[in-house]
Amino acid sequence: MRSPTSLIRPLVRSLEAYVPGEQPRIKGLIKLNTNENPYPPSPKVLAAVRAAVDARLRLYPNPTSHALRVRLARLHGCRPENVFVGNGSDEILALAVRAFVEPLTRRVARPDSRSVVQFFSPSYSLYPVLADAHGAAINAVPLGTDFALPGVAALRRQRRWRFDAALSLVTSPNAPSGRGYETSDLHALAAATRGVVLLDEAYVDFAEDDAMRLALEHPHVIVARTFSKSYSLCFQRIGYAVGHPDLIAAFDRIRDSYNVNGLGQVAALATLDDLPYYRRTIARVVRTRQAMARALGELGFEVLTSQTNFLLVRPPRLPAEIWLERLRARRILVRWFRSRDVREYLRISVGTDAEAKALVRAARAIVREIEGAATLKLRT
Amino acid sequence: MRSPTSLIRPLVRSLEAYVPGEQPRIKGLIKLNTNENPYPPSPKVLAAVRAAVDARLRLYPNPTSHALRVRLARLHGCRPENVFVGNGSDEILALAVRAFVEPLTRRVARPDSRSVVQFFSPSYSLYPVLADAHGAAINAVPLGTDFALPGVAALRRQRRWRFDAALSLVTSPNAPSGRGYETSDLHALAAATRGVVLLDEAYVDFAEDDAMRLALEHPHVIVARTFSKSYSLCFQRIGYAVGHPDLIAAFDRIRDSYNVNGLGQVAALATLDDLPYYRRTIARVVRTRQAMARALGELGFEVLTSQTNFLLVRPPRLPAEIWLERLRARRILVRWFRSRDVREYLRISVGTDAEAKALVRAARAIVREIEGAATLKLRT
Repeated sequence: MRSPTSLIRPLVRSLEAYVPGEQPRIKGLIKLNTNENPYPPSPKVLAAVRAAVDARLRLYPNPTSHALRVRLARLHGCRPENVFVGNGSDEILALAVRAFVEPLTRRVARPDSRSVVQFFSPSYSLYPVLADAHGAAINAVPLGTDFALPGVAALRRQRRWRFDAALSLVTSPNAPSGRGYETSDLHALAAATRGVVLLDEAYVDFAEDDAMRLALEHPHVIVARTFSKSYSLCFQRIGYAVGHPDLIAAFDRIRDSYNVNGLGQVAALATLDDLPYYRRTIARVVRTRQAMARALGELGFEVLTSQTNFLLVRPPRLPAEIWLERLRARRILVRWFRSRDVREYLRISVGTDAEAKALVRAARAIVREIEGAATLKLRT
Repeated sequence: MRSPTSLIRPLVRSLEAYVPGEQPRIKGLIKLNTNENPYPPSPKVLAAVRAAVDARLRLYPNPTSHALRVRLARLHGCRPENVFVGNGSDEILALAVRAFVEPLTRRVARPDSRSVVQFFSPSYSLYPVLADAHGAAINAVPLGTDFALPGVAALRRQRRWRFDAALSLVTSPNAPSGRGYETSDLHALAAATRGVVLLDEAYVDFAEDDAMRLALEHPHVIVARTFSKSYSLCFQRIGYAVGHPDLIAAFDRIRDSYNVNGLGQVAALATLDDLPYYRRTIARVVRTRQAMARALGELGFEVLTSQTNFLLVRPPRLPAEIWLERLRARRILVRWFRSRDVREYLRISVGTDAEAKALVRAARAIVREIEGAATLKLRT
């Protein structure tokens, strides 16, 4: 009998799984580590889901999320054939890699463009995980100063960006930087790039602009969205993509037959019936973000301008990793990434006003601790 | 600009998507085509799900379905490390192909065993779709007379079964035949086969025996189960697999980070708290199946013995495809497969007693129509 490990593909054996942010259920913990929306779904959505919890649970859900595609098409002024619904937008990202990128057959110095998954660094840390799982080549291109999107001329000069890569994943607004990109800059990038360009707009409802029109004007551009952030629906895993019908059909060929759960479809449809509620909660998050940015700035944090529901901040005096621990000791959970380009930063989700105030209070107390320790050192 | 089609992998372009059974919402239609359970989930399950529809929907679900793995481990007398939870068992089948099978790099007459997905024919029609989507080689080995599982000696003689295939998928009890396999025969098959053997027990709760112990005794055997059939939970997409921790870990490395929706996890946990309810509904389905088999037999149908919640029957006098249409005209939907080995059959899900009676009435009326037409022909 072979050992069980020998039964697993060498590629899969060597993978490191993506580590999602912690989901501890500690009482009184303020959870600002996974960019969830602090506000619940609309009462009408909750009522619609509750009303759907009946004998229908025994039936398969609609296999294509048909009604939801129709509604999303109406929202975006396109046809249902332009819309795909996924089990969260994570599924859509995974499908994009599998639909558009050829796995490498062997390691080479400069892999063929057809095998390249490309993205800017830092951006969503899931991208390299998906590329590795597929056996694709990774091209991670550094962002500019303060995580700015490099212009096409600069990308041509630096010769790092591969304009012919099979798949380019662009988080916009970006995570974990929180920075928004101008649609005109994204347009220029997409126009110069020949493979599939997927604009991952998970956080776009917290931004001033979006690039949806690029997906409808350019046959090689896909925009991915999620109901997890602005629509407070992480629990039920609803994401969608808009793009050319041929690319959408490719997703449909390789997805699981019933990829989206039924109550998730019900919840998403009810969400689209109550958008004014979500406009209000989004506006609230944006206001809290601004207040939080100001208050942390006053405490000596370097705060990057954010177009999302989180802030990337460089904390004062102590390494970010220590700040993570100190905040955790005060029952506030934020996110720290080990990777070199952001290890000096913390990513803090925007919570309710009360949560933001608690965070600022904790940060102030920690700053005082540090100052106290410094004074003490000076005296002795 | 390239054409959108040229952006899609040639492999994906050539795929035919799996066609799930129709899910029409026609009033008064009796739906016996997708093997759903005719009985709703337990009232306690519905209450538990309704009670969970609250502000938590804004939060990510548990990424590993941890509580559910713990409960399933207790149910099967194993450790949580032996258990994987998927977005329906379809996701588990897809993950198995991606975890254990090397895609082909080119077409060859006899592909390397590491690239072979193997199964008996007929069985679940999704298997070749998954293999094609991955670029794997397919080895479909015919079942014996009346869809019997060939013995190991016969398989060795026929030289069709590849004992070294990377992945062998065995539906047990089988679909669409409905036939159950003896655990001792499955044991012999698994013991002689060296790659991963996945026993797909979607229908096992309607059978007299199951092969779960093989997954716990043999490091290369995985048993996949689903909450869709016996637990009436199609809508919420819960499947699971039991096997060696190394194989389970391989699934975890390549699945989506939050693959299982939260209300599905809640529903599955509540289901395991109310198993006596499901034992009763399962027993009812089995009784109806037996009555339906008897009644159809009396009408001249050839009825295969079933260990599932459906019957495979060869209808009398007219081709099965015509019967499909005649039943549909009477608002009864059953399933017909075009593939050669089952095209003479209809697959009929076991409904409630009332649905089964309506089916038998419709079949009787159609038999009379045929006899009437025959008499008329004889006379003229």
